[in-house]
Amino acid sequence: MGREGLKTIFLWYLVYVLVISANAAYIKHLNIWPMPMSVSYGYGNLYLSNDFELKTEGTKFSDASGILKDAFLRSIDVVRGTHVIEANSSKIDPSYVLKGIHIVVFSPSDELQHGVDESYKLHIPSQGNPLYAHIEAKTVYGALHGLQTFSQVCYYNISSRGILVHQVPLTIVDQPRFSYRGLLIDTSRHYQPLPVIKKVIDSMTYAKLNVLHWHIVDSQSFPLEIPSYPKLWDGAYSISERYAKRRGINVLAEIDVPGHAESWGVGYPSLWPSADCKEPLDVSNEFTFKLIDGILSGCWQSTPHVRKWLRRNGLNGSEAYQYFVLRAQKIALSHGYEIINWEETFNNFGSKLSPKTVVHNWLGSGVAQRVVEAGLRCIVSNQDKWYLDHLDALWQGFYSNEPLTNITNPKQQALVLGGEVCMWGEHVDASDIEQTIWPRAAAAAERLWTPYDNLAKDPEQVRDRLSYFRCLLNQRGVAAAPLDGFGRAAPYEPGSCYLQ
Amino acid sequence: MGREGLKTIFLWYLVYVLVISANAAYIKHLNIWPMPMSVSYGYGNLYLSNDFELKTEGTKFSDASGILKDAFLRSIDVVRGTHVIEANSSKIDPSYVLKGIHIVVFSPSDELQHGVDESYKLHIPSQGNPLYAHIEAKTVYGALHGLQTFSQVCYYNISSRGILVHQVPLTIVDQPRFSYRGLLIDTSRHYQPLPVIKKVIDSMTYAKLNVLHWHIVDSQSFPLEIPSYPKLWDGAYSISERYAKRRGINVLAEIDVPGHAESWGVGYPSLWPSADCKEPLDVSNEFTFKLIDGILSGCWQSTPHVRKWLRRNGLNGSEAYQYFVLRAQKIALSHGYEIINWEETFNNFGSKLSPKTVVHNWLGSGVAQRVVEAGLRCIVSNQDKWYLDHLDALWQGFYSNEPLTNITNPKQQALVLGGEVCMWGEHVDASDIEQTIWPRAAAAAERLWTPYDNLAKDPEQVRDRLSYFRCLLNQRGVAAAPLDGFGRAAPYEPGSCYLQ
Repeated sequence: MGREGLKTIFLWYLVYVLVISANAAYIKHLNIWPMPMSVSYGYGNLYLSNDFELKTEGTKFSDASGILKDAFLRSIDVVRGTHVIEANSSKIDPSYVLKGIHIVVFSPSDELQHGVDESYKLHIPSQGNPLYAHIEAKTVYGALHGLQTFSQVCYYNISSRGILVHQVPLTIVDQPRFSYRGLLIDTSRHYQPLPVIKKVIDSMTYAKLNVLHWHIVDSQSFPLEIPSYPKLWDGAYSISERYAKRRGINVLAEIDVPGHAESWGVGYPSLWPSADCKEPLDVSNEFTFKLIDGILSGCWQSTPHVRKWLRRNGLNGSEAYQYFVLRAQKIALSHGYEIINWEETFNNFGSKLSPKTVVHNWLGSGVAQRVVEAGLRCIVSNQDKWYLDHLDALWQGFYSNEPLTNITNPKQQALVLGGEVCMWGEHVDASDIEQTIWPRAAAAAERLWTPYDNLAKDPEQVRDRLSYFRCLLNQRGVAAAPLDGFGRAAPYEPGSCYLQ
Repeated sequence: MGREGLKTIFLWYLVYVLVISANAAYIKHLNIWPMPMSVSYGYGNLYLSNDFELKTEGTKFSDASGILKDAFLRSIDVVRGTHVIEANSSKIDPSYVLKGIHIVVFSPSDELQHGVDESYKLHIPSQGNPLYAHIEAKTVYGALHGLQTFSQVCYYNISSRGILVHQVPLTIVDQPRFSYRGLLIDTSRHYQPLPVIKKVIDSMTYAKLNVLHWHIVDSQSFPLEIPSYPKLWDGAYSISERYAKRRGINVLAEIDVPGHAESWGVGYPSLWPSADCKEPLDVSNEFTFKLIDGILSGCWQSTPHVRKWLRRNGLNGSEAYQYFVLRAQKIALSHGYEIINWEETFNNFGSKLSPKTVVHNWLGSGVAQRVVEAGLRCIVSNQDKWYLDHLDALWQGFYSNEPLTNITNPKQQALVLGGEVCMWGEHVDASDIEQTIWPRAAAAAERLWTPYDNLAKDPEQVRDRLSYFRCLLNQRGVAAAPLDGFGRAAPYEPGSCYLQ
């Protein structure tokens, strides 16, 4: 079919509209991931103008830093991909050519903090002259999500060698179910080069994940720059944080104490109880807390001076652990930081924790229920379902893992901030991180974004759409693995990306 | 150490020169891969100017198409990576600041064909004002290799936050041992998106591979556009070919006949012997040859009309196969194409092949010897050593596989054009192609580039340098796997990239 044939096709299509709540299980041909809150769509097609433009008339957001404009350009880039665009939109009836996207943002602020409004509305009419798509959002970060959704209804058309916008008229009203939709990466066990971290950030935006939990420091290395303690470092953290913010992703930096901190003493050996016994950090040494104070601060029983200090203060090992955590919490609170604790502190001395503490579940299921009953906030990452390094945890389990299991009280439900999939780095480096994260993280991303009632009860109902999303990741250069098999399994036979 | 400290370091270094033949085994600290033909180097360091520039005075190459300029810019990009460059070269003694690179190319032509001169000389003085690195090359493609080598002696320095050029004065005289240094990719068994193919091409240039053998068509799909037979297609071939040429990489398009061609008949069913029996292509149908003629024929015995035709022509199955190949060869030759045949034709009726035939070995070792004894040219890809889809083929075997084994006559040696590592696509898609190719393909790349006498007899002698190259690939965003373990194995424990 030649270019001239295109016009005929547009006119020939019977444009009708199907209005539905966007039920993830039953919308077979709306290949958006994660499924929006509400979608109404038709069966028309539009042609994307060769000069597709961003219009921002009426917006309150000045975009001085260029966040929105850059996001627009990135969206167009991923839509066009590296396709050969040969169709000439000026030869097509302008009523069916989408000239641009009109984005109105109501808040002038680009502050990105937990709980920022991420809602948006996307409307694409089926014809008009001039013809624009429309995005409305309270904040620029909602608009960014709108652009991501828009990019997923654009398709390269091989016959016309142009980009078509499918399923118009399209109206989407969307907002996330949970405010915290995280991915943990671990650059301590293996170094991850900056280009890789940037690609992870880019791919997170495709799935509307919004928190990069960066496990920067562990026993093996300390690749983070703390200006006040320069010896601790060798890395490039701030550049990634800026990069992430411009994509609507919060970076949550994690520095584990008092365990998993062996690497700290490479620069400051006095942090270790002794040269032979390096974990946890020396609880008897004021410099330990001075250092924690400065950056946001085990072998205890076996090291004479620490044991002496413990005896003098009447503390056994677990009491000393509690002392350490609570004192470090106070330091963090005094600096205005939010506190997130891995669940051990809750399990061991939950009643002593500051009520501001967010408890990060990882050990198993059922923890969120106990945490919110205690009035604390919770992030769900139960390892049996949401640890990406568990290669035997399949996408179906990632999809089905429900953070609000057995939590029916709405006030308690509100205390569950969301969840996080965890890409621990023992066996992951630049060679395998992408395919270990994707597509399983995407399955969790829909659980965290899409309203509960719209989620598929049987994950097999969304298999086709998730396969589609994984192929879209591939086309965008992300090494997302096939759905079948264990995590990061190779395709088991020749075949189409859409079927694997 | 602050910025001001840098000057002191430069002056403090004792600059002395070690002149050696670049023996791959014994140059422990020259982290260039593949090892050049000859290297002399010192222990000085230079600072890369923030305004590092390309100078081309005296060149015969007009660079109208921008190949050289683009390659220069890419080199600087990979050197700077996404590092935070904060050092200010204008504050450093200009005698130690490398202001740019002066490239002189002697041939005005940018024609890229098999056997093009790829030699280059690279010289970096230890001081001077103004201070330039120098590349001389017969062709722009030699200059491109020089830029790749240059990029490998540049290092990001964490203390000064700048780029240092190590081991000056440096003089490299270099050229490849073999003219054909190939990588086969197979986009038929699994679709590979264009961004992925482009990345493969980029990474090939880092290892100085120069032929992308594109196995485009197989039984499973026909993703290639043949303008005269449009129904055969759905792909984007030409864009990749241009992309590769600008990087000095020849694209060798493969279309298998008469076997592995089941997919052809999806558009043109008459090519199949029958709807139930689809391979090989119908040798009795003139349209088969007409089609082969237009784009540059199994089931034969079991399909009545083909069997009839065979009987009429007095041909058994293998004679018909021979008839098919030889007739297709004549067609290709009449169009001025080079002919490369997988080794089966040589094994079955080698004496009937055109003397212009290049025989592509794959079944086992020892074939090259028989091919060159018969006076034909050969490309080596013995599957036990150089098939990347054989995950149990380790890098040490890739490194040690010698194309000239048992070939001592210089005239026969000259008939071995080189070799090719093969990335068959049954279990490889966008999610795992990079780490299945790298670093094993790099091990073969050194075998094909570096003079025989300079190659390590024991591959373990080059392990450190190959690890270094794999980390360099990672830093450049290429998902090269750790050296240890089977192909594309995950890292087996936490640790530094340089040790895995």
